[in-house]
Amino acid sequence: MAKILILGGGYGGLITAVTLQKKLHYNEAEVTLVNENSYHYFTTELHIPAAGTGHHERFRVPIKSLLNEQKIRFLQARVTAIDVQAQKVELATGDRLDYDYLVIALGSAPETFGIPGLLEYAFGIRNINTVRMIRQHIEYMFAKFANEPHRPELVTIVVGGAGFTGIEFVGELADRVPELCREYDIDREKVKIYNIEAAPQALPGFDPELVEYAVNVLENKGVTFLINTPIKECTPEGVILADGREIKAATVVWTGGVRGHALVENSGIETMRGRVKVDAYLRAPGFENVFVVGDCSLVFNDEGRPYPPTAQMATQQGQALGANLVALLRGGAMTPFRYIHRGTIASLGKGEGIGMVGRRKLFGAQAAFMKKIVDNRALFMVGGLSLVLKKGKF
Amino acid sequence: MAKILILGGGYGGLITAVTLQKKLHYNEAEVTLVNENSYHYFTTELHIPAAGTGHHERFRVPIKSLLNEQKIRFLQARVTAIDVQAQKVELATGDRLDYDYLVIALGSAPETFGIPGLLEYAFGIRNINTVRMIRQHIEYMFAKFANEPHRPELVTIVVGGAGFTGIEFVGELADRVPELCREYDIDREKVKIYNIEAAPQALPGFDPELVEYAVNVLENKGVTFLINTPIKECTPEGVILADGREIKAATVVWTGGVRGHALVENSGIETMRGRVKVDAYLRAPGFENVFVVGDCSLVFNDEGRPYPPTAQMATQQGQALGANLVALLRGGAMTPFRYIHRGTIASLGKGEGIGMVGRRKLFGAQAAFMKKIVDNRALFMVGGLSLVLKKGKF
Repeated sequence: MAKILILGGGYGGLITAVTLQKKLHYNEAEVTLVNENSYHYFTTELHIPAAGTGHHERFRVPIKSLLNEQKIRFLQARVTAIDVQAQKVELATGDRLDYDYLVIALGSAPETFGIPGLLEYAFGIRNINTVRMIRQHIEYMFAKFANEPHRPELVTIVVGGAGFTGIEFVGELADRVPELCREYDIDREKVKIYNIEAAPQALPGFDPELVEYAVNVLENKGVTFLINTPIKECTPEGVILADGREIKAATVVWTGGVRGHALVENSGIETMRGRVKVDAYLRAPGFENVFVVGDCSLVFNDEGRPYPPTAQMATQQGQALGANLVALLRGGAMTPFRYIHRGTIASLGKGEGIGMVGRRKLFGAQAAFMKKIVDNRALFMVGGLSLVLKKGKF
Repeated sequence: MAKILILGGGYGGLITAVTLQKKLHYNEAEVTLVNENSYHYFTTELHIPAAGTGHHERFRVPIKSLLNEQKIRFLQARVTAIDVQAQKVELATGDRLDYDYLVIALGSAPETFGIPGLLEYAFGIRNINTVRMIRQHIEYMFAKFANEPHRPELVTIVVGGAGFTGIEFVGELADRVPELCREYDIDREKVKIYNIEAAPQALPGFDPELVEYAVNVLENKGVTFLINTPIKECTPEGVILADGREIKAATVVWTGGVRGHALVENSGIETMRGRVKVDAYLRAPGFENVFVVGDCSLVFNDEGRPYPPTAQMATQQGQALGANLVALLRGGAMTPFRYIHRGTIASLGKGEGIGMVGRRKLFGAQAAFMKKIVDNRALFMVGGLSLVLKKGKF
């Protein structure tokens, strides 16, 4: 029986598995999904538990609850090496797995663009563990400030990067800060939130009218934007800007970009910033049986520009790959993958958002409402109606 | 009109004020209560919000809500100096207050017995600000441990001192740890709670049968006792014991003892470990118009041994002093203060406790029940039935 090995239970890997599960008959293939955690988490919403405006339990689901174990075996383990020449995958336990078809869906790592200190001193909105730490770090700094009111840096928060994650995170933070101020008897005025972006506008590449709306909403909530302002260095005390200014901040969160997972870079597959430029069937160059989906993959549009790594992309890739793997197993032909951009929506905290669906711009409550629909749709694709009922937004 | 100035809104100062408020007619004296915070907190229960088993809001009450402002003026300010020669009290604002009668009720400061590093690196269960910080510090360390599982010291908690505060705190901690383990996906086995005491038994001076019961209950809840084990030094990494052993712990809480507030030591009044040996009318030696109550005062029993500083003592002193001040104002005679020990009860976490009331020993649920009655009685004395209804335990 053919062995399909899927590495990673994020959107790309999980949707591949779930699609296989739907289409495969029993005993048609031996499918194994390997993931470091016992759960899948909703990467696109991690800014919420990171800020503390929602509990992380709402944003994860046990992988076993999504799988039919007669069709897909789940293995909780950390992958430590991929050897595509020997067709072996090594786990932290020392075990080695072999495969006929490999799906690499290990997600991303932070891209620091060489800025010193970011990996050491900045937090990242990366997974359940790191967002719990961000939430607790911020709250601890507020608790400390109540004891050391002469140290304003304790309640200064720097968010590096005003892309989607950065913008959505400061939106949640701005909602969270008044709660923290009440909890620790702190004046709201004392708290500073900086969103710092190197590019000449927030949400680089996004519609300027929507960007202006977003910046206005967030400024009114108390966020200070420093646009066109590269960060030169991150230190234990805060950040140093390119112009030499220093912002002292006990909390620095870097959302400035991602690259592919380091394991992929070390696997022998050709990568660009850790991402694999896949062919029309999502295969790694030179390997008929190695597929790459999600943030580890790189897909170009018709104008030759790379699509940004998104959950939407990973989900569509997972669906396409699941169907193609079934076709392969049955001796059929694969269908080339084509990404369909359904739109982009960003939340700006409670009841606020912006979005672009087709040519239509969405603002405020309308965008926030659409965001809920999109999030529920993502839940439906992962775990059907029962998951929407358990973790959905109403 | 005579000016009565009360420094401190803890049990001693507040009960003095509340007693005056009950007994004084309007315009019989000008009474001012000065306190750093706008609220009174329940010192004897701070181990609960420190562990995080109960929210701090339950353990404080706005002072203004307890006072009739026609009779007692409340001033939120920090006292920076007391000059009993000049009859002046200096505030952080630079203002100076004068008085005809001064009541010093500023509470305690930690007693470190000269152990190096305790003031710098150990937390203290001292007030609302410090217990919020302890709660958040511990939770933050659990969140960090989920990211750095190779660092067991992150979930190692050392409590220095197995007196009443230490014992009650580890009792709450033992209840809190399983909640934290669930929140951060941590094995309970990984978490260590050490209660370290220099004296040859926990709860030094307390009935041995009750002590044995308490230690058993807490050991079964996962607390490790190191009795007869002095701490030599507290470091940023943990504690070093007298025998040279090191316990690496990201959290060290010192409950080993208290001394009087430093302002009293610097006031020109004679003190022993910052506490003032008061006369039968709670006066400072050599001053007819300076009274000291609560943890700043030192009262001896008939065998010539000092009573430990407790809320029970402070409350009885406040009641006696309030009555005596009214007598003084009206030209009457003061009544000598006599402490009546009503018993001692310690909680050991949810549903567990020990106590001694008269010659009767209380264990387990019975002690926990009595503890609630005692706590509600304390609330009643501070704020009457309405406060019991708002903050009481049922």
